[in-house]
Amino acid sequence: MEECTPTLNTGLRGVTVASTKISDVKGAEGKLIYRGFLVKDLAENATYEEVAHLLLYEHLPGDNELHAFKSALAEARAIPEPVLKIMQNCPTDAHPMDILQAVTSLLASYDPDLTARNREASLRKAARLIAKFPTIMAAWDRIRNGKAPVPPRSDISHAANFLYMLTGEMPDEELAHFFDVGLVLHAEHSFNASTFSARQVASTRAHIYSAVTAALGSLSGELHGGANVRVMEMLQKIGAVENVEAYVQQELEAGRLIFGLGHAVYQTDDPRAHILAPMSQKLGARIGETQWYEISRVLEKTGKAVFKEKKGIDIYVNVDFYSASLYYAMGIPIDLFTPLFALSRVAGWTAHVIEEQYADAAPKPALYRPASDYVGDYCGPDECTFVPIDDR
Amino acid sequence: MEECTPTLNTGLRGVTVASTKISDVKGAEGKLIYRGFLVKDLAENATYEEVAHLLLYEHLPGDNELHAFKSALAEARAIPEPVLKIMQNCPTDAHPMDILQAVTSLLASYDPDLTARNREASLRKAARLIAKFPTIMAAWDRIRNGKAPVPPRSDISHAANFLYMLTGEMPDEELAHFFDVGLVLHAEHSFNASTFSARQVASTRAHIYSAVTAALGSLSGELHGGANVRVMEMLQKIGAVENVEAYVQQELEAGRLIFGLGHAVYQTDDPRAHILAPMSQKLGARIGETQWYEISRVLEKTGKAVFKEKKGIDIYVNVDFYSASLYYAMGIPIDLFTPLFALSRVAGWTAHVIEEQYADAAPKPALYRPASDYVGDYCGPDECTFVPIDDR
Repeated sequence: MEECTPTLNTGLRGVTVASTKISDVKGAEGKLIYRGFLVKDLAENATYEEVAHLLLYEHLPGDNELHAFKSALAEARAIPEPVLKIMQNCPTDAHPMDILQAVTSLLASYDPDLTARNREASLRKAARLIAKFPTIMAAWDRIRNGKAPVPPRSDISHAANFLYMLTGEMPDEELAHFFDVGLVLHAEHSFNASTFSARQVASTRAHIYSAVTAALGSLSGELHGGANVRVMEMLQKIGAVENVEAYVQQELEAGRLIFGLGHAVYQTDDPRAHILAPMSQKLGARIGETQWYEISRVLEKTGKAVFKEKKGIDIYVNVDFYSASLYYAMGIPIDLFTPLFALSRVAGWTAHVIEEQYADAAPKPALYRPASDYVGDYCGPDECTFVPIDDR
Repeated sequence: MEECTPTLNTGLRGVTVASTKISDVKGAEGKLIYRGFLVKDLAENATYEEVAHLLLYEHLPGDNELHAFKSALAEARAIPEPVLKIMQNCPTDAHPMDILQAVTSLLASYDPDLTARNREASLRKAARLIAKFPTIMAAWDRIRNGKAPVPPRSDISHAANFLYMLTGEMPDEELAHFFDVGLVLHAEHSFNASTFSARQVASTRAHIYSAVTAALGSLSGELHGGANVRVMEMLQKIGAVENVEAYVQQELEAGRLIFGLGHAVYQTDDPRAHILAPMSQKLGARIGETQWYEISRVLEKTGKAVFKEKKGIDIYVNVDFYSASLYYAMGIPIDLFTPLFALSRVAGWTAHVIEEQYADAAPKPALYRPASDYVGDYCGPDECTFVPIDDR
């Protein structure tokens, strides 16, 4: 007999809603797996382009496949002139996530495959979304700062090209590599909130741009992709290593959590954090601001110890904890941290949309449509009797 | 002991995910209830403004409250000049739902309450979204047809103002009333796919514009709000009453369903269809095109009879079945049918977002984050061993 998982008002925690071949989070072991491969191995050995191919095409590319996929991405990087013009009419204080969401909706109209309903067309649309996200965000950061957007280059990697478009300067190898590893680590994470949003929208047979737009909305929340921003703000608020202890005590007493510590799925450290931390340390040293990494390290130790001692609970470091100081050391504006998450995760989202719409392995009744428990008590057990406005 | 509902690959059908005080669908009885009131009573007696107030403020407004709410809506109707300019730069063949989605994301930046986190601010944001949706869609329909947008009036009803902005002419009383009834009937429907998307995004603490954007994506799917378009296309394809029988047989033999017949929740006719049908009949007569209503009526009877006889299943008419011919008889372009659904449902979506974010009655762990069943079989039971590209 199936074990009963409560579903009412539990945020669907632990409720298994679908089969997937895309990724697995082994929470107890601290393992994250993309289509069979440990993310740790991928981060150490593969580029974002290889990983995006793995997620979309279900296998790591061979030489020719990788060449073709990289060319497809590089060719699709530019965004249409009218869309750039639209961005130039947007209020400069708009949040980058709102701009990314709006532009994603607009780009639908420029996709020649928009209404095509087959896996191959969807894979092309996915590649276009992956290719264009960095261009949108780099262009927006320049536009809001009164600078002309830097057109994409087609002869450099996905990671290097983003940093080039953002700053107008070619990043050195270490910087581009660290950014690439960050992309690999954020590319996919099973049925997290934004991916579930994307699949949920796709289940109505809405097009892939709509599904990705919904995922962007979900990611923007501070409990999800917005968390890396909150981590950086917290580090700045703490300011120095010697303030960590007091900060932890204060948050504990106020009944709050420490941003970046704790995760819905892992019961140990997030494997991605262990890869991000040394990069954060190294880049911090490079720019002469070692304090952000140092505060993070002490905060991790102190936070874990204090929560264990005072509350008897083990808390673990998650992906947002060290990505914050890493991106900061790269000179990236803090309000672009969540968009960076999106730049990478769009590979996972689109893989899930395609699986949702074309999977033959796991058929399900179309459309996620849950039930709810009506607890309205407006007129007792009966329906209310309508009273015209003059008699109210 | 709680009854076990299977959750794997069932699209969450019958899985109760949250408590709500907003609405109830009594599928077996064919009753739809908004905060205690039968939708039938509301459609016969209340305006859309009263219903939107009921959904958002949890009670039907008194005289003064209604006056204040109507004023707030009327004052918020206009959309910012730069947004209109942006729309003028959009490709004229863009789908109205994509435009509505993009503009919703853009409007976030113009809301003075965007970052305010309290129920009152959220209610103001909800009213602005409700007020602006008709303006966006009417303006878009004119822009794409090379006409200047008609600015909203503040001295007429929500329904009348939309038709006025769309055509540039004041609708007569019957037309405005029928449109208003259509809005009332589409305003809310419990945890349908788009509402669930909105709540799901809101659960990450994303802002209300993001949540509504996601709902728009979900609604655009042909299995959800896109269905009323498919119904009208089907009626046009059938073309005449005498072709109905053959069409039904053909669809049955091909294993397809009839658009507008069948619903996930009702086990009887959708109560909304019974209110829409006579309006469709009356307006059809008024424009001298009675065939769409007549085809619908015969299709309903024939479809029900044939599916019962041949497949032994009872199928019932849903909300999309008669709204299609009703909107058509109003002279509304077919690709605006789904946006019309959105124009109305945005009241329900925003009520649900507010309930999700501020309900004290039904606390739940933040964030809908389900689990999934990993069925990847890439390297057998073990993780795959990474092979560098040169050795693949």
